Amino acid sequence: MDDRTYTAEATPGETVTVAGWVHEIRDLGGIAFLILRDTTGRIQVKFEKDEMDDELVEMGLGVSRESVVAVTGDVKEEPRAPTDVEVVPESVEVLSRADTELPLDPTGKVDAELSTRLDNRTLDLRREAGQAIFSIRSEVQAAVREAFREADATEINTPKIVATGTEGGTELFPITYFGREAFMNQSPQLFKQLIAGSNLERVFEIGPIFRAEEHNTPRHLNEATSIDFEGAFCDHNDAMDVCESVVVAAYEAVAENCAEELDALGLDEFEVPDTPFPRISYEEAIERINATGELDEQLVWGDDLPTEGEKALGNDVGGHYFITDWPAEIKPFYIMDHDDDETLSTGFDMMHPRMELVSGGQREHRREELIAGFEAQGLDPEAFEYYTKMFKYGMPPHAGWGLGAERLIMTMLDLDNIREAVLFPRDRQRLSP
Amino acid sequence: MDDRTYTAEATPGETVTVAGWVHEIRDLGGIAFLILRDTTGRIQVKFEKDEMDDELVEMGLGVSRESVVAVTGDVKEEPRAPTDVEVVPESVEVLSRADTELPLDPTGKVDAELSTRLDNRTLDLRREAGQAIFSIRSEVQAAVREAFREADATEINTPKIVATGTEGGTELFPITYFGREAFMNQSPQLFKQLIAGSNLERVFEIGPIFRAEEHNTPRHLNEATSIDFEGAFCDHNDAMDVCESVVVAAYEAVAENCAEELDALGLDEFEVPDTPFPRISYEEAIERINATGELDEQLVWGDDLPTEGEKALGNDVGGHYFITDWPAEIKPFYIMDHDDDETLSTGFDMMHPRMELVSGGQREHRREELIAGFEAQGLDPEAFEYYTKMFKYGMPPHAGWGLGAERLIMTMLDLDNIREAVLFPRDRQRLSP
Repeated sequence: MDDRTYTAEATPGETVTVAGWVHEIRDLGGIAFLILRDTTGRIQVKFEKDEMDDELVEMGLGVSRESVVAVTGDVKEEPRAPTDVEVVPESVEVLSRADTELPLDPTGKVDAELSTRLDNRTLDLRREAGQAIFSIRSEVQAAVREAFREADATEINTPKIVATGTEGGTELFPITYFGREAFMNQSPQLFKQLIAGSNLERVFEIGPIFRAEEHNTPRHLNEATSIDFEGAFCDHNDAMDVCESVVVAAYEAVAENCAEELDALGLDEFEVPDTPFPRISYEEAIERINATGELDEQLVWGDDLPTEGEKALGNDVGGHYFITDWPAEIKPFYIMDHDDDETLSTGFDMMHPRMELVSGGQREHRREELIAGFEAQGLDPEAFEYYTKMFKYGMPPHAGWGLGAERLIMTMLDLDNIREAVLFPRDRQRLSP
Repeated sequence: MDDRTYTAEATPGETVTVAGWVHEIRDLGGIAFLILRDTTGRIQVKFEKDEMDDELVEMGLGVSRESVVAVTGDVKEEPRAPTDVEVVPESVEVLSRADTELPLDPTGKVDAELSTRLDNRTLDLRREAGQAIFSIRSEVQAAVREAFREADATEINTPKIVATGTEGGTELFPITYFGREAFMNQSPQLFKQLIAGSNLERVFEIGPIFRAEEHNTPRHLNEATSIDFEGAFCDHNDAMDVCESVVVAAYEAVAENCAEELDALGLDEFEVPDTPFPRISYEEAIERINATGELDEQLVWGDDLPTEGEKALGNDVGGHYFITDWPAEIKPFYIMDHDDDETLSTGFDMMHPRMELVSGGQREHRREELIAGFEAQGLDPEAFEYYTKMFKYGMPPHAGWGLGAERLIMTMLDLDNIREAVLFPRDRQRLSP
């Protein structure tokens, strides 16, 4: 359809063909309006019944909402029209007729349940707010990649079908792979490390991860998008610097390029986070959580932070922040401990006041310590030989992190449920569409 | 390691710390050189044995190849050095020692089997040529996304765990999903169409696809990266235009930004394809193939094109080209036929002289015809109700295509085997690393 004009680009004085969905029909008697909607916005098409051909009027006004039409006509200035212009139609072609009953209302005037919306994403994303979330998601991915490129990182794609999981056999979806057992990968962790040890040095990936966790909460998914970074010759502080720059770049791009989308979501007070993000030690974190009095029981050294504790601390801090210097025993074995205190890990989390967004750290690059870590975790190092073997051939110190893309979008746009940030979410109940 | 300087940025007169791998040690007696390699290149470190501290000399020259070292010293001009500069070391720190026996030679002087290289990707991608392929791959993805953005397309992520495959149950890897049977998706086809029917209108995705095909060839993978486009209000010609612009943008970006990488791959005569790509009808294609005399048997209308035929035609055309107007019966049911001749499909393939890169077409957006297509294909339309249902609510005409990212890289860089273009390929035999 080479000759189609976007509604937003229809200029008075031109004859155009606009095409899109019948958003609404307003029949005022002698005059009626068809509001045509496309990806760029809406335009009013005016039917003056007495002055126009009956067939044309019937074609334009007899069509059901959400049907797809192409309208050819002259564009006129019309200050009373919502966009100050209207089309006076010469012809109307119906390209696709919609049922008169719709499972949800794309004008957004009638609210629908989330499950109804997810069952009918095509219609749901004809709502302004729905379209806005995914336009922003696309913008965020572009900004994140650009920030990685500025940090000298190369984009990679690691395999999603794997022989062994990153952290063992739990929480993995099993696959039948040509008669063998395999799994869907829960994290690119081991693979991105292998490539950080090559001459590429700094790498990133934005790709799917799969977790067979039986969570059923508004912030867990069984298939999610992970934004991953790994860099040779980086320590945990370097990794936090890259993390901060990537997250801030995403906010800045949205603030700069997505004003309409933010407006559609009612986010007039969208703010780019202040930098630097505070770096709070685990020790300070539990002290501050305890001081809020929000928890029934005081936290002690070695406790993992409960969700309520994270929230209390998030309220206290009031913005994005890092938690550093975790007890070594509650971080994964592939995270390095501090040189000068082996009870302390270089692992870090990056937090939004509402929830954890990022987990990272400097990695253990010393092969013997790494193998001991597998054993301590109850994993058979033999099963990971493809990985540990490379640590014999000059594995540089390296660090990295993983950021949940949906959590980034969810917290950025203040969405109630993480499923709002995924086109077709996967959870224990939902496998289709 | 905030104070690290890339070897390519070490400037005479400065004192720097460079860090990387021991590429080579050349001991000439009284003088010896350590060639240090990092992601940006190499630099010579000079040891004048009589004038330097013995311990320093021993530390620098006693270390095995591929060990990781950090060298601090003054950068001097030295016209006899490969990069016209050298480092006179003040200190050498060994960050990670490598075994003296390596499974392959990262200097590239000794060739290794592909399987050895794939088993040892970390080492393999310390070779210049290995690094070059994946730097280019990253550049291609960036250029492709930019071209999509210029074509007003929004980046999407569709689910990889699905209840039903795009084209039925064959060639799918089964998963156990919380006790239910599910599959790894073989194509984003149905999902991208559902979103093209939303207000996003034009969408693209670069993501993994999974095919349980028992091929064992240098150009098939069981897990691949697919570059997908789908656009509402597009016909097959619009889709071909976008396809051509995306592929050309990838070549242009590589020509412009990857001179060193092309050099490392010996591709001095890299050329951006001429446009427009010829659009050759299926009918003309079989005539031209028959005329080459390369096939033992002449092709007749309705035959699929055999690999040998594609090669003969590719040689004849000499560059990228489209094959259009296929017999409807050999294209998938979701491709629309021509209005004026139902035996002809709007489906198209985009070909490199060596192989098919892209398959696309205008889609069937009329629900009744679509359901009839499922039935004709022997598929139960009920199983796809989540998809066909949306065609009741105003599905616009739309068109799109899928491009194999690895085939694009393989043909662009004249690689013999598609596995060269994937970090960790998956085939019937290879599931690890």
